[in-house]
Amino acid sequence: MSDIEEQIRQIFEGYKTAVFEKNVEAFLALYDENIHLFDMWEKWSYNGKDAWREMVSNWFGSLGDEKVVVDFDSLTVTATNEIAVVHTFVTYKAVASNGNELRSMNNRLTAALKKSNGTWKIFHEHSSAPLDGNTLKATLQRQ
Amino acid sequence: MSDIEEQIRQIFEGYKTAVFEKNVEAFLALYDENIHLFDMWEKWSYNGKDAWREMVSNWFGSLGDEKVVVDFDSLTVTATNEIAVVHTFVTYKAVASNGNELRSMNNRLTAALKKSNGTWKIFHEHSSAPLDGNTLKATLQRQ
Repeated sequence: MSDIEEQIRQIFEGYKTAVFEKNVEAFLALYDENIHLFDMWEKWSYNGKDAWREMVSNWFGSLGDEKVVVDFDSLTVTATNEIAVVHTFVTYKAVASNGNELRSMNNRLTAALKKSNGTWKIFHEHSSAPLDGNTLKATLQRQ
Repeated sequence: MSDIEEQIRQIFEGYKTAVFEKNVEAFLALYDENIHLFDMWEKWSYNGKDAWREMVSNWFGSLGDEKVVVDFDSLTVTATNEIAVVHTFVTYKAVASNGNELRSMNNRLTAALKKSNGTWKIFHEHSSAPLDGNTLKATLQRQ
């Protein structure tokens, strides 16, 4: 594995930790100030870290005693010195304060990163799940 | 606009033309052999041009006398000499053989391109529409 790929994978380890700890600032530190997102839920797009901070704060704030365990499957990195592209399947698993699994869903995630001041930051992210062509409903469990 | 950005935008002009002409080979020529896609419909992912060819052939073949007009809105390019990342809103408008509009939908699209043998090719693509958190149904009209 190249040094760059190792650096990129560390970003996604940071993502898992920040979500598990519900640490808004640690989570946002993974992103560029001018982040642009196509997020899976509700809105067509988010522009800028302030809009993203509001979403992330609401998400973590809504969890109460629950924690969310993130896992990446088939995470693939394509990178040069300046830009990296990542695509991966994601599992978000909600666990109760006693560790019991409450529910789980899969997403597909694409992230584009660039190096600014020596550090990789996500400047674009796209998450989704595939739709049934008849009902327009998403499937949240990967077959 | 930089030369690279101009080259990338030409790829998306090629996308519009290939869809309007329902030209499977011209469409597939925009993609790398090892294309990986998170497409909006049905499947969690497509790997490789053969899998993508089947989807595109079925799509174009299903259109009968209809044609599809593609428009990109807010298309944004982030590029170096080797890798480019594009995100854009897309409108797919189906028109009858007399030019009348039949229906229209919006998507969000992310594409990652790399230069191989001097030509930009899409090696990863992700398309989706945002979901309603209660119903899990997608909205296909951008507000």
